[in-house]
Amino acid sequence: MNPIGIGAIGVALPATRQATASEAARLGITPERLAARLGFVRLARKAPAEDTSDLALAALRALAAQGVDLRRIECLAVVTQNPDGLGIPPVSTILHGQLELPQSVATFDIAHGCAGFVYGLAITRAFMMAEGFRTGVLVTADPYSKIVDPDDPHTALIFGDAAAATLLTPEATWSVGHTDFGSDGASREALVLKSSGRLYMNGKRIARLCGTVVPHSIARALALNHLTLAEVDEVLLHQGSRYMVETIGLGIGAPDKTPFYAADYGNLVSSSIPVALALHVRESVRTLVASGFGVGLAWATTVLRRENGADA
Amino acid sequence: MNPIGIGAIGVALPATRQATASEAARLGITPERLAARLGFVRLARKAPAEDTSDLALAALRALAAQGVDLRRIECLAVVTQNPDGLGIPPVSTILHGQLELPQSVATFDIAHGCAGFVYGLAITRAFMMAEGFRTGVLVTADPYSKIVDPDDPHTALIFGDAAAATLLTPEATWSVGHTDFGSDGASREALVLKSSGRLYMNGKRIARLCGTVVPHSIARALALNHLTLAEVDEVLLHQGSRYMVETIGLGIGAPDKTPFYAADYGNLVSSSIPVALALHVRESVRTLVASGFGVGLAWATTVLRRENGADA
Repeated sequence: MNPIGIGAIGVALPATRQATASEAARLGITPERLAARLGFVRLARKAPAEDTSDLALAALRALAAQGVDLRRIECLAVVTQNPDGLGIPPVSTILHGQLELPQSVATFDIAHGCAGFVYGLAITRAFMMAEGFRTGVLVTADPYSKIVDPDDPHTALIFGDAAAATLLTPEATWSVGHTDFGSDGASREALVLKSSGRLYMNGKRIARLCGTVVPHSIARALALNHLTLAEVDEVLLHQGSRYMVETIGLGIGAPDKTPFYAADYGNLVSSSIPVALALHVRESVRTLVASGFGVGLAWATTVLRRENGADA
Repeated sequence: MNPIGIGAIGVALPATRQATASEAARLGITPERLAARLGFVRLARKAPAEDTSDLALAALRALAAQGVDLRRIECLAVVTQNPDGLGIPPVSTILHGQLELPQSVATFDIAHGCAGFVYGLAITRAFMMAEGFRTGVLVTADPYSKIVDPDDPHTALIFGDAAAATLLTPEATWSVGHTDFGSDGASREALVLKSSGRLYMNGKRIARLCGTVVPHSIARALALNHLTLAEVDEVLLHQGSRYMVETIGLGIGAPDKTPFYAADYGNLVSSSIPVALALHVRESVRTLVASGFGVGLAWATTVLRRENGADA
C-alpha cells in the first residue's frame, strides 16, 4: 500500500464577510497598519447560530460533492480548540452521528491551533498507516468569531471562520513528507482564552517568536526531506497576517515563494493551509513546503509533493 | 528499531478521598445500589485549587522518580476533555513550559474520555513510529470533579480524580498489539457537558450500549491479534462502575478475567487503565486485553503483552 497522502479537500468558507476598514477606524487602527500589517480586507463570518460542527459538516459535504463516499471512511479526526458547547461530546462524535457513519469508524479530536493542520495531518496519517486504514478524513474547524472580542483591537480584525475536510488516502494528489515539529511552552501566555471566554493575544511576542523559529523549522523540514529551498516551488505559510507571512518570507530569503492569500477572508486558524491548497495553489506548484504556527505556541512544517495527473 | 510500547507509568492519585456512603444517603442512593452497581467506596479528590495540569505534572514527576529523564522526550501527548481554563493554551503546552522542555518536542492534546488511554496509546505510538521518535510520554488527566454536580445522583458518586504519565519507548515492558476502534455518534447525547458547566449522563443508555459493543470490540481485538480469550490472562476494562465491569465480564463469558479495581478511588476516566496497570495488575499476567469506552460514545480495545524481565 502506498503511504497515506491528501486526496481531495472540501472547503466551507462562509459567503458572509465583514469589511475591516470601517471596523479599523472604530478601533483606532490606521489604514496603513490594516493594509501592511494585518492585510485582511474582509473576514469570513459564519452565521451567529452556526456552530463548529455545522461548518465542519459543510466542509464534509463539499468533500462528498467531489465524489468522496463518506460512508466508506474508517477514521474521522477533527482539529479544533472551539468545539460545540463545552467539548463533551467531541466534534468528531457529533459529525459521526450526523453523517450516520458505521460504528467501526475511529473518531478523535485534536486540540491545536494554527499549527493544527500540519500536526493533524502527521498524526492522522501515521495512525491510519499503523492501523491499516485506507480512507480517512481530517477536518479542521475553528471559528474564532466565537471567542474574539469585537472591541479588542489586537484580535478583532484578524480571524475568519472556515472549515476544511481533507481526504486522506493512498490514492493521493499530494504526498506528505517528513515533518518538523516544535513547541515553546515558555510562550504559552502569549495566546490565552481567558475565563471571560475572550481571546487574549500578545501579537508582538508571537510575531517575534514565529519570525525566529519558523524559518528554522522550514530549514529542518527541508533537510529531513533532502530538499533545498531552490527545489521548492512554494512555501505555503499559515496565513496569520500579511506581516507574519512577509516576515517569514524574508527570514528564509525567499519572499517570492511565500504568497499571502487570505486578504479576502482572514486568518482561518487550522484551516488556512488546506483552504489555500484547495483554492489558491497553482497547478504548476509541484513541491510545496507547508508550515503552521500558533497557539501554544507550537509549529509544524512538512513537504507536500503533487502526484501526477490530479489536483487537490 | 523495535515498535514503541509502554516503558513505565507514573501515577498521580490524590490521597484525599471522599467516602461515598454518607453522600449516597443524602442523594437517595440505597446502600445496595452503591455497593452492587456503582461499587465505589471512596473517590479520589484533588484539592480544589489544583488544576488538570497540576495533576498531570504530579504524574510526570512520579514517572521521573522512576529514573525517566523527561528532558529527553521527543513527544508529549495529553488526553483530556477538561483542560486548564478554557483550553487555550492546551495542557501539553503548559506542561512543556513547566518542565522547560526543549523546543524540538512535539506536543498535542487529544480530546477523549474513558476510551482515551487506548486511543491515545494507538495514536501517539503510531505518530512516534512514523516520525522516528524513540521516547515519548502519553499523559491522561481528566479530573471530572471539575464538572460533576455534587447534587446529581446520576454522576456524583462515580468519578475520581487522577492522572497518569505513560512512557512510550522501544524498550518496552508492555508491547502493544493491534487495536479495535469504534464510535456511536447516535448516542452522543448520552454524555454531555451542559452549558451550565455540569455533566449530564444517561447511565442506562451508556450501560446498555457498552454492554453490547464492548464484548464485540474485545472479540475483534482478539481476532486482530490472532488470540483466543483462553490465551489472555486478564481483560482490563475501563473501571466505569462495578456493574459495567461485571456486565461486560459476563458478556464475554469470562467474569473471572475482568477484575474491578477501583472501589477505593472511583472511575478515573482515561487514567483508569494506566493506573490499574501501574498499581494492580499482577506480574503473573503476561497477556492482557485493555478496553476503554466512554464519552462520545467511543470505544477502543487493544492487547498488551508483558516483555521479559520488567514490569510497568
